Amino acid sequence: MAHVTNQQADSILDKEYKCLNAGFVRLIDYMGGDESIVQAARVSYGKGTKSVNEDRGLIRYLMRHLHTTPFEMVELKFHVKLPIFVARQWIRHRTANVNEYSGRYSVMKDEFYIPEHEAIHFQSLQNKQGRRTEDVPAELRQRVLEVLTNTQQQLYTEYEQLLEEDIARELARVNLPLSLYTEWYWKIDLHNLFHFLRLRIDPHAQYEIRIYAEAMAEITKTVCPLAWEAFEDYMLKSERFSRLELNIISGFLPSETLTKEYLESKGLKGREADEFLEKLSHLKKSSSQGEGSR
Amino acid sequence: MAHVTNQQADSILDKEYKCLNAGFVRLIDYMGGDESIVQAARVSYGKGTKSVNEDRGLIRYLMRHLHTTPFEMVELKFHVKLPIFVARQWIRHRTANVNEYSGRYSVMKDEFYIPEHEAIHFQSLQNKQGRRTEDVPAELRQRVLEVLTNTQQQLYTEYEQLLEEDIARELARVNLPLSLYTEWYWKIDLHNLFHFLRLRIDPHAQYEIRIYAEAMAEITKTVCPLAWEAFEDYMLKSERFSRLELNIISGFLPSETLTKEYLESKGLKGREADEFLEKLSHLKKSSSQGEGSR
Amino acid sequence: MAHVTNQQADSILDKEYKCLNAGFVRLIDYMGGDESIVQAARVSYGKGTKSVNEDRGLIRYLMRHLHTTPFEMVELKFHVKLPIFVARQWIRHRTANVNEYSGRYSVMKDEFYIPEHEAIHFQSLQNKQGRRTEDVPAELRQRVLEVLTNTQQQLYTEYEQLLEEDIARELARVNLPLSLYTEWYWKIDLHNLFHFLRLRIDPHAQYEIRIYAEAMAEITKTVCPLAWEAFEDYMLKSERFSRLELNIISGFLPSETLTKEYLESKGLKGREADEFLEKLSHLKKSSSQGEGSR
Amino acid sequence: MAHVTNQQADSILDKEYKCLNAGFVRLIDYMGGDESIVQAARVSYGKGTKSVNEDRGLIRYLMRHLHTTPFEMVELKFHVKLPIFVARQWIRHRTANVNEYSGRYSVMKDEFYIPEHEAIHFQSLQNKQGRRTEDVPAELRQRVLEVLTNTQQQLYTEYEQLLEEDIARELARVNLPLSLYTEWYWKIDLHNLFHFLRLRIDPHAQYEIRIYAEAMAEITKTVCPLAWEAFEDYMLKSERFSRLELNIISGFLPSETLTKEYLESKGLKGREADEFLEKLSHLKKSSSQGEGSR
Repeated sequence: MAHVTNQQADSILDKEYKCLNAGFVRLIDYMGGDESIVQAARVSYGKGTKSVNEDRGLIRYLMRHLHTTPFEMVELKFHVKLPIFVARQWIRHRTANVNEYSGRYSVMKDEFYIPEHEAIHFQSLQNKQGRRTEDVPAELRQRVLEVLTNTQQQLYTEYEQLLEEDIARELARVNLPLSLYTEWYWKIDLHNLFHFLRLRIDPHAQYEIRIYAEAMAEITKTVCPLAWEAFEDYMLKSERFSRLELNIISGFLPSETLTKEYLESKGLKGREADEFLEKLSHLKKSSSQGEGSR
Repeated sequence: MAHVTNQQADSILDKEYKCLNAGFVRLIDYMGGDESIVQAARVSYGKGTKSVNEDRGLIRYLMRHLHTTPFEMVELKFHVKLPIFVARQWIRHRTANVNEYSGRYSVMKDEFYIPEHEAIHFQSLQNKQGRRTEDVPAELRQRVLEVLTNTQQQLYTEYEQLLEEDIARELARVNLPLSLYTEWYWKIDLHNLFHFLRLRIDPHAQYEIRIYAEAMAEITKTVCPLAWEAFEDYMLKSERFSRLELNIISGFLPSETLTKEYLESKGLKGREADEFLEKLSHLKKSSSQGEGSR
Repeated sequence: MAHVTNQQADSILDKEYKCLNAGFVRLIDYMGGDESIVQAARVSYGKGTKSVNEDRGLIRYLMRHLHTTPFEMVELKFHVKLPIFVARQWIRHRTANVNEYSGRYSVMKDEFYIPEHEAIHFQSLQNKQGRRTEDVPAELRQRVLEVLTNTQQQLYTEYEQLLEEDIARELARVNLPLSLYTEWYWKIDLHNLFHFLRLRIDPHAQYEIRIYAEAMAEITKTVCPLAWEAFEDYMLKSERFSRLELNIISGFLPSETLTKEYLESKGLKGREADEFLEKLSHLKKSSSQGEGSR
Repeated sequence: MAHVTNQQADSILDKEYKCLNAGFVRLIDYMGGDESIVQAARVSYGKGTKSVNEDRGLIRYLMRHLHTTPFEMVELKFHVKLPIFVARQWIRHRTANVNEYSGRYSVMKDEFYIPEHEAIHFQSLQNKQGRRTEDVPAELRQRVLEVLTNTQQQLYTEYEQLLEEDIARELARVNLPLSLYTEWYWKIDLHNLFHFLRLRIDPHAQYEIRIYAEAMAEITKTVCPLAWEAFEDYMLKSERFSRLELNIISGFLPSETLTKEYLESKGLKGREADEFLEKLSHLKKSSSQGEGSR
């Protein structure tokens, strides 16, 4: 046996996926792929996996039933260049390995995040953490950009002057802004990467980190196309309904129409159709007992 | 300020919740409660939490939106006595702290798992990992129990004989069975405990570990009643629907009926009603584009 | 049984330990103490702990032999106010729980790190990451402080102006500097806290994070005085010697002088003296085989 | 750029390293090697690494100074077959990914740990957890082996009978012994693997897990020869001395003899000699203040 690799993935190794004005994501190395998810699952379930006899079906089964450990057997390593305020959100995901460029050891480079015109938004009214869709007038956008870029240049000049005076690097940098770019190597297993992507592709995530998550989604899809498809179908494009929401929904779902034949005609095959019918029958039962509120 | 505690929780400290024939779970200590979830969230969101001005609402909001870090601020410590085969499933949850009784240092005690009559089941036919609901004949049950208990006694006698010959404890124990009881201290934060409970209360979990999960659910509910309620409503009794399932469901949900007034009449209040309507409008949009299968 | 607490520790709950010009550390809550380390160890080792019959001796034994799990049974929760560049070093410790103040939800406050005169240093010459001990002239110090504080005020004014224009908070903040103060709740178990303190009390750690580590050391000592003493003796004030260094050292250690009586006269008691003699006999053996270099 | 691999390591992919009577370790896949440790460190330290201009020196510097994150950039995946009592010690290392053969899904195989004659020992007298070196009489060894193997066959027969009666697999297995073999895939990064090996190669670890640790040490050395050498010199064959031990030792180390020239003649080169002298000067200082006991 040899390393599990795939040509598609090998062809994007080291390729820069541009993000924001000066950042990027690059896939540096990876270990495993769809094949190694299947390999690990077959060790776990032994003969128990015979009935699911093709790889795609097995991977989808694992994803659907939250059997997450086989996905941990794939590892991806990225090189990322990103603004510090994005890095601060990113690093909250603790199940990864990181080596970041250090402003104690080295001189930070003169590169700052400058938003594109379309990324400049008003504060959202309903949403404490978001941006409003309403357009910011071109003239105000221009002014914002000027303030940002002028100040960035000034801050870097002050930084350079402190270094010239031979002030310790670790101190000279303290007034550098959160818009400054940093770099890191970031390594994570596929299960935890999916978790990261789910949270960071979400419309509630800040625009600037979403850009990175989307680039990494492209890369991940290339490394593990089957796992990615399962992730999309059962996680990314799925929806969770609460107890109360289920009570409401279930009233509108006619058991007599929702037969196995009907489901299959709509694309839900064999085992998945059974699982859906089982879910529905639970709903009916619990909603007939459930109170409307509490 | 002082420790965040609650009387109800203090009154069950150290109480034995019996599990299986000779096991138990005891709450040994805990740190924090509903109050400290709120406290941590208010630091995170600062003035941003003003609009959610009561604790219950805030906790439910956090749970609904997967803002999990405030739940990590509560910690529970359990003393558990459990059969080794249950311990082997349990320990797979890596985000906890454990101190287990050691068969290298100490002599294992003469206590084994013996199933109750009703816990003896046939192998499930559809489910590779489960038990069949069909009844096992009383006579066969009796035989199973006899085999198990006789062998357990024999194994313990052999163990004792090896110890009498002064064979090293770490070696003398190797033929002790998975049904032997062990003990441990197990400490975990509330977020990770919820994750553990969600997987182990599930009907697909093995019966014997479910018994422990249910006892711990009781305890958790006492320590953090509001967080528990939110966990039940948005996680435990929620249901996830895949992309394809959503395509099917959305066809049956009449936008004209599902108004905010209707939802409120069914118990979905203010913000939650809005969020539900937003989810529905996404569904409609994506299902009108979505293909039935792929 | 009740919560394991101690009066000394309770008396410092919530007390502000000032750090730098505007930061602090406060102990918000804790679970357990020396007593619960012992309690957990006695479950692990069962009767095996009988021979170590007093708490202090047992705790020291555990620390010396890297039996770290009982130390994980104690948990401490801190409230910390700290500059962002310190927070960025701190967060690299992944085995903790964090809730940080969010600049997306809330307006950042007008507080910045301003070094004391004595904390302004030249770049170290030998050490890539450090500060030089040589004094910075008073006049240069003054200039550094002026640059820092003037710029901080300017940056905050620009931030306020962007907020007044109703630019989204998450965008308005991107030019705020690393010297800005943030706040968080930070919860960690004692074993991992010791690891954090060992790295951050070290003279190679940046001065500004060391100040926090020292405040937390004070607090930790109050919560678990016996564990702290063991940590100091066997970790903080211990020293590791490499294979080659041991080869050199062992040539100078006279076996005939280093008897158990001698060691006891110097304060190394019973078991510890035996362990030391065993270490020495290993050294002698391996150094007589060991080559000088490779 | 392409995957970081090495021929030596590729040549042992999939090779069985036999362990105990029926177990093994196999390297299934790996990501990175010495080269990727260096690559990650150079990102972290930027120009700061220029002074350490060759790979071996840099890797040794990182190991010596506990800069552990670059070692996390290498990942190894093993397939292991091991007795359950060994698996129970092994799984306590939480920073790894595991897929284990499941006795709920599949029928366990008829393979049990049978110790070699030389592995049968008496209980250690001083050491609560160990074996005594004194020989067990051949006749007693024979008897122990007979008891173990006879009982193992009986237990497997009973297991098969329960399966024939169609009792659920998850229940039928509960009397199977800890000596039964299981299998898993186990994936870990190099830093955490070193930590595992340090604890499990140690003479205090149980003999049976040590055998596995030694096989994995061979494999690791092949994947990362330079990192392994540094690990041996600075960790595995290093020794830690406590505060009190240092007080004693330092009295015997003559400053006048221990010059840089002397150290270099003994193989401690440049930077390392300086670091050693710095350690010594600390010792002298603190021991002249230090009390003998407390």
